[in-house]
Amino acid sequence: MSGRLSLLAPDGVAEVTEGTDLAALLLGALDALGEPLADGDVVVVTSKVVSKAEGRTRPGDREAALAEELSAPGARVVARRGPTTIARTRHGLTMAAAGIDASNVALGTVVLLPLDPDASARALRRRLHDLTGLRLGVVVTDTAGRAWREGQTDIAVGAAGLLVAEDFAGRVDAHGNELAVTAPAVADEIAGAVELAQGKLGGRPFGVVRGRADLVLGVDDDGPGAQALVRPEGGDLFGYGAREAVVRALLGDPGDRAPFGAPAAPEELAEAVRRVTARAGTAVGDGLAVVVPLEQEGAVAALAFAHGWEVESRLRVEPDVEVRLRPATP
Amino acid sequence: MSGRLSLLAPDGVAEVTEGTDLAALLLGALDALGEPLADGDVVVVTSKVVSKAEGRTRPGDREAALAEELSAPGARVVARRGPTTIARTRHGLTMAAAGIDASNVALGTVVLLPLDPDASARALRRRLHDLTGLRLGVVVTDTAGRAWREGQTDIAVGAAGLLVAEDFAGRVDAHGNELAVTAPAVADEIAGAVELAQGKLGGRPFGVVRGRADLVLGVDDDGPGAQALVRPEGGDLFGYGAREAVVRALLGDPGDRAPFGAPAAPEELAEAVRRVTARAGTAVGDGLAVVVPLEQEGAVAALAFAHGWEVESRLRVEPDVEVRLRPATP
Repeated sequence: MSGRLSLLAPDGVAEVTEGTDLAALLLGALDALGEPLADGDVVVVTSKVVSKAEGRTRPGDREAALAEELSAPGARVVARRGPTTIARTRHGLTMAAAGIDASNVALGTVVLLPLDPDASARALRRRLHDLTGLRLGVVVTDTAGRAWREGQTDIAVGAAGLLVAEDFAGRVDAHGNELAVTAPAVADEIAGAVELAQGKLGGRPFGVVRGRADLVLGVDDDGPGAQALVRPEGGDLFGYGAREAVVRALLGDPGDRAPFGAPAAPEELAEAVRRVTARAGTAVGDGLAVVVPLEQEGAVAALAFAHGWEVESRLRVEPDVEVRLRPATP
Repeated sequence: MSGRLSLLAPDGVAEVTEGTDLAALLLGALDALGEPLADGDVVVVTSKVVSKAEGRTRPGDREAALAEELSAPGARVVARRGPTTIARTRHGLTMAAAGIDASNVALGTVVLLPLDPDASARALRRRLHDLTGLRLGVVVTDTAGRAWREGQTDIAVGAAGLLVAEDFAGRVDAHGNELAVTAPAVADEIAGAVELAQGKLGGRPFGVVRGRADLVLGVDDDGPGAQALVRPEGGDLFGYGAREAVVRALLGDPGDRAPFGAPAAPEELAEAVRRVTARAGTAVGDGLAVVVPLEQEGAVAALAFAHGWEVESRLRVEPDVEVRLRPATP
């Protein structure tokens, strides 16, 4: 049967303002093309027009909007360099300038991400179902840079009625090997695919993907949303930029511990301490004791912090100091 | 005119072994479907079958193959946690287990990435042109995890005859705003889109994307390849995992400096030193002098290292130490 997909990003979509009915707007544009939606289609919409429809535009510049976004619960700076601030947003998205956008909007205004893009996707799905009776998936997209790779791709920041990641955990191939790729992030791949049809010059905020109806859930099941593609705080090896990680480990502020993740195994911390101080640690119960010259005490504390551990006690053992470490309690 | 794309991943492709003519294999599968290639199509192929055709399979397990890949020039560990090793490969790709794959191969063997996936793409493009006379783009894909997001997507590890990233630098939108997204990584979006048509259960190593002939270069122009999507060593804020960054900054091995990037501005380093030590630095020529308690000297050296600086000299000023720092010379 082979795999076949078709993607359509309609032209002729009017400008979106606060209160615009996005479902009606999309259906009108598809009607004009004579290309109605079909059961199992995935509808894609840029977060920009969702934000505009939801009144998430602000007068002013990026700096003020960035301060607003960074003050939201759960938001924080991930890395800074020169004029660039990479932030983790309230949604857990890691994006330059917290996803604040100053293109394809009126001069002197900026667009913030929707407050809850999964809720936006659910509302659009419900409205489309009301208007068409169809079983559809919905993806809300935004454009994001990546670690390690140049350029940007569109990703799914919101979703409803869609399996956002396939689940192959435990599946084996025809040779009997367990599959190494356990969860293709299909919602992100759909977002990127539609960007190819939309382009970046404006005027094509919608897309329709046909051919993966197997990913679309029943009309009463909105699924977990794109939130399921966000790696939880502490679950990531790249929760800070490399430079920021060093500053924060040396600061050792317990309120800043989460991005380093759960406590490492004692052997991992002991190995790091050995590499840096050339001293072997000793297991003491669930903890680790290490005797180092006084000037290396700070390094040991920083390593402990970066491994999700903390200093339990210190004892001068002239000319050295014995530092006892234990896994940090959250 | 709207944006329209179609994607096809043909079934009925025979197993690939060393020396298989991939171009003939693809054309045969398309012939059987009655779906010939057309001018401006982008042909996509998984790196796995390219590797198999090029003899890049190995008996044995992942560990031995990982050691081989890590010994290649330019390769290094980016982060480790538990059984997972994330490595930067000889190609500059950052992938779990250096992209070594043990699925959809014979049991007890593994597949390494092609030695030069851009060259593989160029060779396939040339052969397809010889057989069809068509102007085509070629993308070689692999599946990769991402920082910050769950699941995996397919990305372009090789390309020929394709604009891998669009260039909107300096372009303005209809409102007169400069576009924030300057380079959509279209080759990666193509790779992910085709994964949606291929799936992960094997048997569909090829894909054909129709509808973006504007991205396909002239037959005599292979373009820069997917290498242009690799952020150069030192050009990334996430060249190490957060934990590894701390270990490496504290080790301060000059041979390990590149992933931290070029020297930071003096104000950035001074700010980091002030945050960690509560001491303000003093500009001395192009360098920075800071007076800190002896036990903070190590922290200052680690911060300098992480900011691409080095310790020029130290002077005891009882009870403190004055550390002079300068930008590191590569």
